[in-house]
Amino acid sequence: MGPTTPIGAGEGGSATTTSDTAQLVDNEEASTSSQGNLGKTVHFEDEIENDDLEGSHGIRRRQPVQKFEPGSLNILSAKYESLDYDTCENHLLLDEERKRGYPFVVWKGIARWFIFLLIGVITALIAFIIDICIEEFSNIKYSELKKSVDKYVIEDKLYIPYLLWVLSNIGIVFIGAVLVAYVEPVAAGSGIPQVKCYLNGVKVPRVVRFKTLLVKTVGVITAVVGGLAGGKEGPMIHSGAVVAAGISQGKSTTFNKDFKIFQYFREDHEKRDFVSGGAAAGVSAAFGAPIGGVLFSLEEGTSFWNQALTWRTFFGTVVSTFTLNVALSAYHGHPGDLSFPGLLNLGKMEPFPFQFYELPVFMLFGAAGGLLGALWNHMNYRLAVFRIRYITSPWLRVVEACLVAAASASAGFLMMFLLNDCRPLGEDPTKVPLQLYCADGEYNALAAVWFQTPEASVRSLIHDPMGSYKPTSILVFVLCYFVLSTWTFGLCVSSGLFIPNLLTGAAWGRLGAIAIQLMMPNTPINPAKYALVGAAAQLGGVVRMTISLTVIIIETTGQISNALPIIITVVVAKWVGDFFNEGIYDIHIQLAAVPLLPWEPPPLTHNIYASQVMSHPVFTLRTVENVAHILEVLRMVSYNGFPVVDPPLTDDSEVTTYKRLRGLILRSQLIVLLQNKIFNENANSAWSNTKVDMDMFRTEYPRYPTIEEMQLSEWDKTCTIDLRPFMSPSPYTLPHRASLPRLFRLFRALGLRHLPIVNDVNEVVGMVTRKDIARYRVWRHRGHMGMEELLFSGEV
Amino acid sequence: MGPTTPIGAGEGGSATTTSDTAQLVDNEEASTSSQGNLGKTVHFEDEIENDDLEGSHGIRRRQPVQKFEPGSLNILSAKYESLDYDTCENHLLLDEERKRGYPFVVWKGIARWFIFLLIGVITALIAFIIDICIEEFSNIKYSELKKSVDKYVIEDKLYIPYLLWVLSNIGIVFIGAVLVAYVEPVAAGSGIPQVKCYLNGVKVPRVVRFKTLLVKTVGVITAVVGGLAGGKEGPMIHSGAVVAAGISQGKSTTFNKDFKIFQYFREDHEKRDFVSGGAAAGVSAAFGAPIGGVLFSLEEGTSFWNQALTWRTFFGTVVSTFTLNVALSAYHGHPGDLSFPGLLNLGKMEPFPFQFYELPVFMLFGAAGGLLGALWNHMNYRLAVFRIRYITSPWLRVVEACLVAAASASAGFLMMFLLNDCRPLGEDPTKVPLQLYCADGEYNALAAVWFQTPEASVRSLIHDPMGSYKPTSILVFVLCYFVLSTWTFGLCVSSGLFIPNLLTGAAWGRLGAIAIQLMMPNTPINPAKYALVGAAAQLGGVVRMTISLTVIIIETTGQISNALPIIITVVVAKWVGDFFNEGIYDIHIQLAAVPLLPWEPPPLTHNIYASQVMSHPVFTLRTVENVAHILEVLRMVSYNGFPVVDPPLTDDSEVTTYKRLRGLILRSQLIVLLQNKIFNENANSAWSNTKVDMDMFRTEYPRYPTIEEMQLSEWDKTCTIDLRPFMSPSPYTLPHRASLPRLFRLFRALGLRHLPIVNDVNEVVGMVTRKDIARYRVWRHRGHMGMEELLFSGEV
Repeated sequence: MGPTTPIGAGEGGSATTTSDTAQLVDNEEASTSSQGNLGKTVHFEDEIENDDLEGSHGIRRRQPVQKFEPGSLNILSAKYESLDYDTCENHLLLDEERKRGYPFVVWKGIARWFIFLLIGVITALIAFIIDICIEEFSNIKYSELKKSVDKYVIEDKLYIPYLLWVLSNIGIVFIGAVLVAYVEPVAAGSGIPQVKCYLNGVKVPRVVRFKTLLVKTVGVITAVVGGLAGGKEGPMIHSGAVVAAGISQGKSTTFNKDFKIFQYFREDHEKRDFVSGGAAAGVSAAFGAPIGGVLFSLEEGTSFWNQALTWRTFFGTVVSTFTLNVALSAYHGHPGDLSFPGLLNLGKMEPFPFQFYELPVFMLFGAAGGLLGALWNHMNYRLAVFRIRYITSPWLRVVEACLVAAASASAGFLMMFLLNDCRPLGEDPTKVPLQLYCADGEYNALAAVWFQTPEASVRSLIHDPMGSYKPTSILVFVLCYFVLSTWTFGLCVSSGLFIPNLLTGAAWGRLGAIAIQLMMPNTPINPAKYALVGAAAQLGGVVRMTISLTVIIIETTGQISNALPIIITVVVAKWVGDFFNEGIYDIHIQLAAVPLLPWEPPPLTHNIYASQVMSHPVFTLRTVENVAHILEVLRMVSYNGFPVVDPPLTDDSEVTTYKRLRGLILRSQLIVLLQNKIFNENANSAWSNTKVDMDMFRTEYPRYPTIEEMQLSEWDKTCTIDLRPFMSPSPYTLPHRASLPRLFRLFRALGLRHLPIVNDVNEVVGMVTRKDIARYRVWRHRGHMGMEELLFSGEV
Repeated sequence: MGPTTPIGAGEGGSATTTSDTAQLVDNEEASTSSQGNLGKTVHFEDEIENDDLEGSHGIRRRQPVQKFEPGSLNILSAKYESLDYDTCENHLLLDEERKRGYPFVVWKGIARWFIFLLIGVITALIAFIIDICIEEFSNIKYSELKKSVDKYVIEDKLYIPYLLWVLSNIGIVFIGAVLVAYVEPVAAGSGIPQVKCYLNGVKVPRVVRFKTLLVKTVGVITAVVGGLAGGKEGPMIHSGAVVAAGISQGKSTTFNKDFKIFQYFREDHEKRDFVSGGAAAGVSAAFGAPIGGVLFSLEEGTSFWNQALTWRTFFGTVVSTFTLNVALSAYHGHPGDLSFPGLLNLGKMEPFPFQFYELPVFMLFGAAGGLLGALWNHMNYRLAVFRIRYITSPWLRVVEACLVAAASASAGFLMMFLLNDCRPLGEDPTKVPLQLYCADGEYNALAAVWFQTPEASVRSLIHDPMGSYKPTSILVFVLCYFVLSTWTFGLCVSSGLFIPNLLTGAAWGRLGAIAIQLMMPNTPINPAKYALVGAAAQLGGVVRMTISLTVIIIETTGQISNALPIIITVVVAKWVGDFFNEGIYDIHIQLAAVPLLPWEPPPLTHNIYASQVMSHPVFTLRTVENVAHILEVLRMVSYNGFPVVDPPLTDDSEVTTYKRLRGLILRSQLIVLLQNKIFNENANSAWSNTKVDMDMFRTEYPRYPTIEEMQLSEWDKTCTIDLRPFMSPSPYTLPHRASLPRLFRLFRALGLRHLPIVNDVNEVVGMVTRKDIARYRVWRHRGHMGMEELLFSGEV
């Protein structure tokens, strides 16, 4: 994400072109309505002049100077296109329905289940490949480093293994960073914010392409093997989403290949459903959590709960975790054993019995997690702003990634060098026990934590018996890893934040257990309990998910009886964290100025009317329209939807004002019509000769040619197009006196992209798009709340 | 449910009154629209004449003769009112918003959390009371019976304890049956279908009243103690819903008491949210399954996923299970131990390791569960039809309940008498070991199963070691309990079907384990694994829930590692069962002719237009309307929503045709206006004197006076009312050429009750209500599908 993602053609929330054409519905005309309270739409230009006007009803308006400040959370970008979940019920669709009938409905149903099966299997296989690569490469890396340390510690030339470590880290991370910076910037980070935007209805460019998946896969391997404080779980969710988008569409833009299958799923609505299932399959594979996966895609993504879709998603997540389980079990030499349900394995937890009076302790842990999470988010936000301002070129980003790689290695080395935390060997299993300065038969406890993948370290910190680490070691580790992990997230590499936060949380949770042990020396304290609760609290404080996170942790540890402590902790962490700032994903989404629609309309906005929200004047097309005019309009404005209008029933003196709404046509449909020359008068490509059906539109989906690519002869331009068979004949509309909450609910519940606003006699007076609504946002800060109107950044 | 629930005033899906008033929009008038394909609405009367006309596009129309047949699944009743989730954004609401501001929004947010806390606590306490009563009374009953058996078996007078058993069963069940039959018939059964209807948006009369809760509580205790094959879990869900409705509204109709608190939550939308949370809290208390509770209310209930609501629901379920846990732990003498999370406790399962090749076995179990479940549903459906036809009076229903109580006791007695299944004592714990004809030191295994609550029997059948029962004993038990449980569900007592089906399933699952053991004599077979899978399969085959059922079973057994087998089993059971019929709740809902909206619009209905679906002519009101006319309209028709119209802009010759839509007003609003005499000319109660605000409408919610109760003087009738400040000024509308799926999505996503249909110039031509849409239903049967148009039963 980040403002570095390229600019798509926007719906033009604030078109500045105002040339009057005959079909242009003027604002003043609309006042024929009896209500007649059509306020002026607050345009971008107006804003600058009226900046010191406090909006009515306490609407907070940002000072316009802030809007050019990079890193502001109060700007919406006009560059993002929206997805359209509304079906265009034109004549072609009716024809197709009539021809294909019920067998086709049944067939589509079966195809959907089949695609979910494929999504599950392929997502699991990608997870398998990532896991194996990370494990094998890490093994090689750390055993080589160990050999080097063992060799040079005697010669007192520890700088040699140190340099070796730093250089290997830099080298590995360099590959991933270059790929992300130069090949596919959208593959950076965990991908969860992007998937969240997609499911909300915002098209983040190239987010579900195959190229992104490739870069992500290689990127996440290099990031984890390169020793960064990042995890492979978030990227799995993104990978699942890409897999789902790819399979369900039966084509790949990266390979320029159209398999001509599943063409009937080529629409935003169907694609969104599959992507939501793919993300769930990704969670399922990452954490071995089929139920958590379903809940994740519900909690973070969809707004409309569809039972059939949920059952299919559930099927996909089960297939995903099962396939990964089979594959990993076979790889580890226990085929049929099925004990590797996910990438992250926190190890089998014993059920920890807890007492009534321990609940306040869990709440305290939750509060600490909320505080630390809020701090983590704030630091990461500051860093992100810094990056937007100063780390602007790809090579600088690569350099930063390498710097962090070096810092990670240095931190680890310094820690194990300076804190000589020696433990007797054989007490717990570590793959690469490092003696360093310890006595024979002992190993360096911190080296054990650093010389393995973060997943393995989480396991160690949770399961190692009491007294495996010195308290000071853990404290230094927490501080260090806290800073490293927040520095790493948002870096130009593919990695997630689940594992680093679980690791930090497990570490301070264990610290808490030690503190409790000191206070109650005679009670045996189980450090695993507090380490797990700490991990849940820290992660909950950062991501602010409640239900899905709880279920994921329960499924990962395989212990449902620990549910209550984890639930309490996560809920308290969310409450405390929300007091200070938003979840990290939302912060990054706001930084990228994505017009995300929240769950509910902002409160107390019943006095904001559609007439204030809508964009106008509106560019309309007649039911039978000149090709030349269509071309002109498409070139002039960047709108993506155009109302199709008729002359009014009562012919006034102005015969030229066509305003009566008859339908809605999309830019993409117009472009396909122009491209295929479906003109009325053109004998060469008359209706009878060209096969005009839905597939004509589906072939181009989702990337249509631009209007500039159209090659039309002068003769073509004299033709007309009858738009009626192609337009959506009965779009949802609202009257100009409808309130913002009413607009909002319609948009949110039905996933609309365009909404024509009409007056009392059904004449179009404006258009509302997602951005016009997303501008009104509620702010909540330390118990106070209000409403603010965001600004558009225009084309950055 | 059942057609015995009294009749409410319907929205009048098929009003037969056609008297033309001046404000009546005539059907023919609408053809001024350019599309002009306004088909005739298929009226009930037309249907009878055109019954042999096969609908276009394979729409199957039932023969009208069937519509009078009781027990048909293809009739919708016009008697149910709908709930309205759309906010009426009139001037009063705006005033209130302006006056109260953001602090009120914050306050409402806090109040919501507080109410969910109360819901959780009180639901848990009800569960606690039910559980304790059942346990204590059952203990007394069975130990008395045991004493009697022990005494008379020596004298060979076993008919005495048998009679004692039968009579005690009948006596106890009689109390509950009388309560249900005479005091509150809606308290019969599990209540889940009723809650499901409520959440879907259908008002089932008296379903969330306090009286219902009381009858339900006593009823479920008598049903379980009376030895019926029913459980207490379903009723808990209903109880939670009632608690939520009661607390959130701050008033009780049963006690005729208005606490004047939480008045701002007195609207359908808010109430629905609380009821959904209450149902979840009920599940949570019943099964100790907080996550399962959330999923249940999502899978069975809501259509719009709201994140904030889900978090509150989660909070409520956690509080509920926690409170119950504390209370039960204290009662059982282990305060602070927290080992009683729910009413149903299947006992701690060991994680059962399973092999890859066992998956087909689980699928086979699932298929068996699907088949048996479909059979169970079919038998229960037949029984329900029989009951509707012949068991029509309350006393007959009481007699039937007593008959089943006697049959249950007889079945148990015969079984333990005839199948002398003796086991050595001490092998497993049973509270009331019965020696009967067994040798000393042995006990009758079947008596152990029968002489305890069904919950305890499920635990025994799952956990008892291999060989605790003879295969023939189990087989006879399965057959017997299968029949008893299907006979019991739908009886005039309050009891659920979860436990009996789990019991039946666990029994045949254990039978399956024995069969596998016979096939593989050398492998140690864990019967618990197969018994649990069988229980899940049987229940899944009956109720057809997937995700929530899986999670509930996982949470109840406390073992997440068994997730995969259970998931596979439940999904297969659903698939197989769906091939034959629908889930039992849906069958009962269809029997009650409830106009439930499915999740998706029926396929291939894009060629059915709003003009065909809508009811017309429409009764409209003018923006300023005569009181006499309002009275006349309200008395004449039973519609609940009226479009408010203006004269058209262009004055034609007919000055009297007011058709331009200006707003929508509800019957309830009109009644409150009439009641409070908010008339324009009436000096006594002029606007300035009467306090007109939202609370005036909230006080009456949800049961408004009828129009017949209005006392208006002749002078009053000469007044007018200005409807504009009260009406919803911008209702959602659709053009007459909108397709059925478009109507459907708007209704489903926004929870509408009325939708005015307009022509191209925004004149009202019809109204669509929930029933008009629910009529179009897809049928799926053994792989085939199609669409059928249901009939209205009118006022039965």
